[in-house]
Amino acid sequence: MAEKSSRGLADAVAASTALSDIDGRAGRLSYRGYDISQLAGAATFEEIAYLLQRGSAPGRAELDSYRAEMTAGRVTGKLVTSCLPEVARGQGPMEALRTLVSLASAGDPDSESNDPQPNLRKAARLTAQQPVLVAAYEAVRKGRQGSDPDPGLGLAANFLLQITGTRPSQREAEIFDTCLVLHADHTMNASTFAARVCAATLSDMHSAVVAALGTLKGPLHGGANEQVMRGLEAIRNGADGDLEQAVSTRVTARLRQGEKLMGFGHRVYKTEDPRAAHLRRMSAELGAASGDDTYYRMSRRMEEVVLAEKGLYPNVDFYAATVYHYLRIPTDLFTPVFSVSRMAGWTAHVIEQHADNRLIRPDSEYIGESDLTWIPLEAR
Amino acid sequence: MAEKSSRGLADAVAASTALSDIDGRAGRLSYRGYDISQLAGAATFEEIAYLLQRGSAPGRAELDSYRAEMTAGRVTGKLVTSCLPEVARGQGPMEALRTLVSLASAGDPDSESNDPQPNLRKAARLTAQQPVLVAAYEAVRKGRQGSDPDPGLGLAANFLLQITGTRPSQREAEIFDTCLVLHADHTMNASTFAARVCAATLSDMHSAVVAALGTLKGPLHGGANEQVMRGLEAIRNGADGDLEQAVSTRVTARLRQGEKLMGFGHRVYKTEDPRAAHLRRMSAELGAASGDDTYYRMSRRMEEVVLAEKGLYPNVDFYAATVYHYLRIPTDLFTPVFSVSRMAGWTAHVIEQHADNRLIRPDSEYIGESDLTWIPLEAR
Repeated sequence: MAEKSSRGLADAVAASTALSDIDGRAGRLSYRGYDISQLAGAATFEEIAYLLQRGSAPGRAELDSYRAEMTAGRVTGKLVTSCLPEVARGQGPMEALRTLVSLASAGDPDSESNDPQPNLRKAARLTAQQPVLVAAYEAVRKGRQGSDPDPGLGLAANFLLQITGTRPSQREAEIFDTCLVLHADHTMNASTFAARVCAATLSDMHSAVVAALGTLKGPLHGGANEQVMRGLEAIRNGADGDLEQAVSTRVTARLRQGEKLMGFGHRVYKTEDPRAAHLRRMSAELGAASGDDTYYRMSRRMEEVVLAEKGLYPNVDFYAATVYHYLRIPTDLFTPVFSVSRMAGWTAHVIEQHADNRLIRPDSEYIGESDLTWIPLEAR
Repeated sequence: MAEKSSRGLADAVAASTALSDIDGRAGRLSYRGYDISQLAGAATFEEIAYLLQRGSAPGRAELDSYRAEMTAGRVTGKLVTSCLPEVARGQGPMEALRTLVSLASAGDPDSESNDPQPNLRKAARLTAQQPVLVAAYEAVRKGRQGSDPDPGLGLAANFLLQITGTRPSQREAEIFDTCLVLHADHTMNASTFAARVCAATLSDMHSAVVAALGTLKGPLHGGANEQVMRGLEAIRNGADGDLEQAVSTRVTARLRQGEKLMGFGHRVYKTEDPRAAHLRRMSAELGAASGDDTYYRMSRRMEEVVLAEKGLYPNVDFYAATVYHYLRIPTDLFTPVFSVSRMAGWTAHVIEQHADNRLIRPDSEYIGESDLTWIPLEAR
């Protein structure tokens, strides 16, 4: 008989990693030994992708070379190009990304090799391609011509430019870059773990990333940031008068009915998610700059109510929602935006898994019937 | 510090299941309480898919209704239809299936619901569609018109007819049906586990199955049957004279150099894989019937050598290779054939996961550096 504590593998160690570490009691997250509080606002997403995938912080020449590799690697190949219009019209954003990355393996010359150098090259390409795919999807859907990336801008600014169609301010680009840094890796989260389970059969990086994308799609994982925004929108659209009061009333009622609220609590953190503090500050700043900080104030009130009622802290998804909203990102692209960032971590985990592989094959506890006798169809 | 025994989760219980059970010491496998030795040759694949997905052996009326549901559910939708030719020309078989199933969600009216009834309907459709997708892929690749399924034949016979272009004998169809039964489920194998990790974020069945397909692709998992056949072919093509002697010489040398041979050993079975015994008998029968049992005899010799040298028994992949070969299935479709069968199990596991869900999010052991100080790019 298995112990109930094993359900969901909450206490089991699935793999060793040098990529990120969480101190759940202290509320700390670090990437390769650097606390994210040092990195937020101080490092670009490209530096962090390099750090995770290649093992150390890049010098200027290394970073330039990596960025050039990413620029060259943006091309997703003719299979993606020819299927993209129909896929974008026929599938939701995360379904479409799952399909498009699966198609993109056909255009990658290293797709079938798990060796270290091909894996490094694929990691750079996949990280460069993900914002291109999201932007191309959005362009088809909105019926506009996709704009070419501006070579003078970094990945974050270019991505904002491409999905909103408007050039972001420098501060908006910096904030979005920090968002990408904060979401880049997070130990054995469900999508990363799915990628490692896949890679551990010695399947290839594209297969692992496709598994991760399908896993991130779930509302208990990457889908949560979108649900947070839809929750705020529903309250705003449904209330007259004081919106903060409406949040208090509505959220208290939902919690007392036993409902779960997206964006609160985390299996690993016993205190505040360290990413939430950075995102809260950025939400406040962008809300003030926009001239309408209603969603920020509603979020603050929701945070207070949930802490008072349930003792739960906001997680990474909660303030990411309003930050993305203030950056004019369409709500149904919040999870795709998450995938743009987490691609850095997923690919780094695949590299790490392949470098010292063992099949991941857990046990299960059998709870069904035993020793039944099969009766042929004619006699049933 | 984590225990080393946790690597690969070999001792961890990931989930409870009533679908299948393995007694590794006794070498027994059962589906919902029925030992597979009772089922092999006595149950059709459709009965087993029903048993796994719907919980009990179907009566005649239930089975007829399920088969009608599968027949109606074979249609994969216009997104698959329009992308299929290019996908089939541009991607290898397992890459293509990963893409095609991802595309197929667009044609499924239940794709976004995880409720019990939609999940049951999707499980029947996905199980009906998988052989259609493999056959359509093969038809495009071979430049021939895909043949329509014969309504008088079961899934196994129709699938053989469609991928080989030749109507199988009744005995060939029975044997292939038994192969599908033997591969339908196998507790928490890596692809099934990937599907459950994905489904546990409350992502949808198509996403979970796409994750499973990418995971099955790996040579340590579904890719092994193809590797077995390629190994046999390489020995046959490279040797003059006595092929059984060539097997002895070659395999002994490889094992003594520390190489691993695909198709032998299993993390869970401490004795013979019970599926291997059935597949060995069928390989012998088909080899004799074909008039050239060379590959069967080579396999027998390889089995003897590996047992003597390493104490390892053949697993499910070993004799599946020659059985599929004798059934005239192209070698690079062996893993896709595995997926046709395992679709029954994957979908049943997703139904089970959604019915009593908990996020699957294991721990990791951090083995990297700590407390580093981030130096800005300009100063590095």
